[in-house]
Amino acid sequence: MAESSLNALVEALRRLPGVGIKSAQRMAFHLLQHDRDGALRLAQALRDAVDKVGHCQRCHTFSEQPVCETCRDPQRDARLLCVVESPADQAALERTGSYHGLYFVLLGRLSPLDGVGARDIGVAELLERAGDGVVEEVILATSFTAEGEATAHLLAQALRERGLKVTRLARGVPAGSELEYVDLSTIAHALVERR
Amino acid sequence: MAESSLNALVEALRRLPGVGIKSAQRMAFHLLQHDRDGALRLAQALRDAVDKVGHCQRCHTFSEQPVCETCRDPQRDARLLCVVESPADQAALERTGSYHGLYFVLLGRLSPLDGVGARDIGVAELLERAGDGVVEEVILATSFTAEGEATAHLLAQALRERGLKVTRLARGVPAGSELEYVDLSTIAHALVERR
Repeated sequence: MAESSLNALVEALRRLPGVGIKSAQRMAFHLLQHDRDGALRLAQALRDAVDKVGHCQRCHTFSEQPVCETCRDPQRDARLLCVVESPADQAALERTGSYHGLYFVLLGRLSPLDGVGARDIGVAELLERAGDGVVEEVILATSFTAEGEATAHLLAQALRERGLKVTRLARGVPAGSELEYVDLSTIAHALVERR
Repeated sequence: MAESSLNALVEALRRLPGVGIKSAQRMAFHLLQHDRDGALRLAQALRDAVDKVGHCQRCHTFSEQPVCETCRDPQRDARLLCVVESPADQAALERTGSYHGLYFVLLGRLSPLDGVGARDIGVAELLERAGDGVVEEVILATSFTAEGEATAHLLAQALRERGLKVTRLARGVPAGSELEYVDLSTIAHALVERR
């Protein structure tokens, strides 16, 4: 294990989220022993992605074009704008297949302790985007964490001041869960927001 | 998510062991959003490792030199030869710090159902290596699975025929475990092999 390029590979793999020293070693060993072709393909894919993937000018999600496919899609309902924290959250919403409007990706959330303020999450850009005269409703789909809620609160105020209709994803009991095992705060919210 | 180089990256990451579609997406998003430098470093590390890392002529472990550091180390006890299935198993033994002999890495184990026979795991090379006149004891450290045991059995026979002393890692109750939670087969073996 004192071999330098093997160690360098293990160290580079450890920087991936959720990968510790043991997984990194296992990945490195696997690639070198069974899948050198896969290793080279991964190297090329990493370079290509870093070279080509930028951000959409309209919604800030990842895109290889100046404006992403979703924003260019004429089938999308341009009256709806859904605000998410990250491209991963956008992908999760897309997988549901039940949203057909457009997106705005904050690429972050308010986090005063980490020095992330309103400017860093592009509030001004969002206000400009939402004020294009076509958007009628802004759906806030930030996380239901303290930071996500604070972000939603700030955005809701600023958007409502401009006369836009602002909604928030419903909070409640997750599909498929038994009430007995759901945490109390979730049940309390589901009670208050019953319909 | 219809962006082709982003998709290609996610697909390439999915080929890593233990990485499913969600982890692969999370890794790709993380690299592009927060660590493009890390992505390029990983690409370079992959190429370097594939270019430079081969196998040691003596013990078959990963090495950038014709003969690996361990095999060249004069501090090692050349009378002891430990047979493991993979470089990962070798690394696990090295981490214990309690073995100071040399290694032989099979790079596999007998698996008749997958068509892996005695030739594929280098039995002939092991017999040659162990018959160098210096090795006195061969420690079989293959896994304690059906395939690992079959491999150990075959190797033990072949090595004993050549008059070599053959031992096997002790089987027993793992350190730190409560007897109540240890599986019966392990307890039975620990009873039989009590000392």
